[in-house]
Amino acid sequence: MSKRYNIAILGATGAVGEELLNVLDERSLPIHKVRLFASKRSAGIAVTWQKQTLKVEDIETADLQGIDIAFFTAGSQASQTYAGRFIEVGAVIIDNTSAFRMQEAVPLVVPEVNAEALDKHRGIISNPNCSTIQLMAPLSALHRVGGLKRVVVSTYQSSSGAGKRAMEELRDQTIKLLRFEEPPLKIFSRRLAFDLIPEIGSIEPSGDTSEEEKMINESRKILSLPHLKVSATCVRVPTFIGHCISLNVELESAVELSEANEALERAEGVLLCAADEWPSTVDVVGDDDVWVGRVRRDRSLDCGFNLWVAADNLRKGAATNAIQIAEALIARDLVRVNLT
Amino acid sequence: MSKRYNIAILGATGAVGEELLNVLDERSLPIHKVRLFASKRSAGIAVTWQKQTLKVEDIETADLQGIDIAFFTAGSQASQTYAGRFIEVGAVIIDNTSAFRMQEAVPLVVPEVNAEALDKHRGIISNPNCSTIQLMAPLSALHRVGGLKRVVVSTYQSSSGAGKRAMEELRDQTIKLLRFEEPPLKIFSRRLAFDLIPEIGSIEPSGDTSEEEKMINESRKILSLPHLKVSATCVRVPTFIGHCISLNVELESAVELSEANEALERAEGVLLCAADEWPSTVDVVGDDDVWVGRVRRDRSLDCGFNLWVAADNLRKGAATNAIQIAEALIARDLVRVNLT
Repeated sequence: MSKRYNIAILGATGAVGEELLNVLDERSLPIHKVRLFASKRSAGIAVTWQKQTLKVEDIETADLQGIDIAFFTAGSQASQTYAGRFIEVGAVIIDNTSAFRMQEAVPLVVPEVNAEALDKHRGIISNPNCSTIQLMAPLSALHRVGGLKRVVVSTYQSSSGAGKRAMEELRDQTIKLLRFEEPPLKIFSRRLAFDLIPEIGSIEPSGDTSEEEKMINESRKILSLPHLKVSATCVRVPTFIGHCISLNVELESAVELSEANEALERAEGVLLCAADEWPSTVDVVGDDDVWVGRVRRDRSLDCGFNLWVAADNLRKGAATNAIQIAEALIARDLVRVNLT
Repeated sequence: MSKRYNIAILGATGAVGEELLNVLDERSLPIHKVRLFASKRSAGIAVTWQKQTLKVEDIETADLQGIDIAFFTAGSQASQTYAGRFIEVGAVIIDNTSAFRMQEAVPLVVPEVNAEALDKHRGIISNPNCSTIQLMAPLSALHRVGGLKRVVVSTYQSSSGAGKRAMEELRDQTIKLLRFEEPPLKIFSRRLAFDLIPEIGSIEPSGDTSEEEKMINESRKILSLPHLKVSATCVRVPTFIGHCISLNVELESAVELSEANEALERAEGVLLCAADEWPSTVDVVGDDDVWVGRVRRDRSLDCGFNLWVAADNLRKGAATNAIQIAEALIARDLVRVNLT
């Protein structure tokens, strides 16, 4: 497979866009050329990558001919607006937004878990929500040994999940508070510095937030368990990069703690910590694995476990998973738009 | 009831000791005299309270005669060491540590929930663990309408739960990190600033931490539900004062969302937020209520709810609850040691 691919990134100047360039630099995707796109506002910005200077192009006016794989990370609206033009030139889109995730014809993929879903793609593959991605490999491993019955999740999500300016706002709020000054509120509706925001996205008619509904619906789609029972509470915490999750899993059949640990140990993309150890955000930043710690029996269930799951939300939760999707597409010779 | 009581505080210079003085000042306990005690190291410190200057006495050498009610908040070891001497002089002890909580003869009390347990006290009443206290009124309210079946809890506990020096450490770590300097580690085993510590207390043979075991065991004792199924994951987050809890409740029988809300609305000591609203730590600091928000159906259960519960861990989680115990003892005429 000597073909080399032309790669595009739409939303190149955001937190995930920058991380895509980092991960592209580290991994061995066979690249011919990288082109960066953004809105008019960011067009013209020069980005250095692998000793080249890449100029951000205005997506409105750019000629897209020749692009093979396009990573979208410029928001749902941009994905909806520009998908057609990329597909027209034969590019396969790996979309990091929620725009197409729940469409039946669009594969929603965590490659370690459901790479086979890629086979039926029609030009767009969705990258799941950050907090959902990091649950998939551990849940899939436990499902294989005991069958998932119900999952209760509480998240501890970092500010970077809301973008680069959200991280800056956490920093600025923190500095202002330490100086006894009024903290700025721009991205966040309430103060995040030294506080918590148990509302990510909008509150939906169900009472869950859009983020919580994503976790429920996307988990079911990725794991091919359309009736999986999932309860989620998503909380923004004052950290910069790295999402952590308190995960409670009820299984259908009895599984020993040692079996659960072996299943997690074997699971591709999972780094299992030693017994009684646990990852924090500082451990996972810059890493591509999903770290699992504090695996223990839940004594309130016949067959259940509690786990602490952490991952870099910009990498495994976004950029790395997207690039792993591209790698899987190449390995399966699927870098072409199949609209038949 | 015109009697006025002599009050003692052991551990008067700690975070909870200071808050006890604040709460004593605000509430109308019939006080004759307040005496403060601490170890030799803190003895002699002058504390201003209600325009009086109170001098901290050395607990080792002090004459305890005349004390009616003693609040203990100087650690489990101090409680065990000094309880006998206070009981000898006829004082009733309200102990904020875990020293006696699980002893059968010792009432463990959240007054809105189980004040009747005070009737059998033998000189010591235990104040429950901070994160447990704030769950009791909401859980008790839901138990009355639907019967508790299983509870899954993930906590977001502030640094003040580990004392005054822990709050200082969070501040100092934060400042150092913002200056790109090495953050200090004294109280905490790992960095808390802009990070998370999913291990509070020691890890026990069950795999749960001592804090998690407290939540399980103390909840069962307070609610008089010795077999209640509780799963807990306790996490320290970089906030100063105010513990928050993601609470998932499974009930025995079907309860409408409106019924659950009414039960919480009626519950003494609970402040129910409007639908879709929620408290953060900034709301609850300095307040004596347990705030409950984001009450919603858990669609993964036939009868279950998710709630977000927040309270000031130094007040309702410690000082306020202790003083409410004293008020209940006085109302029930139980301020005497009953060793028969």
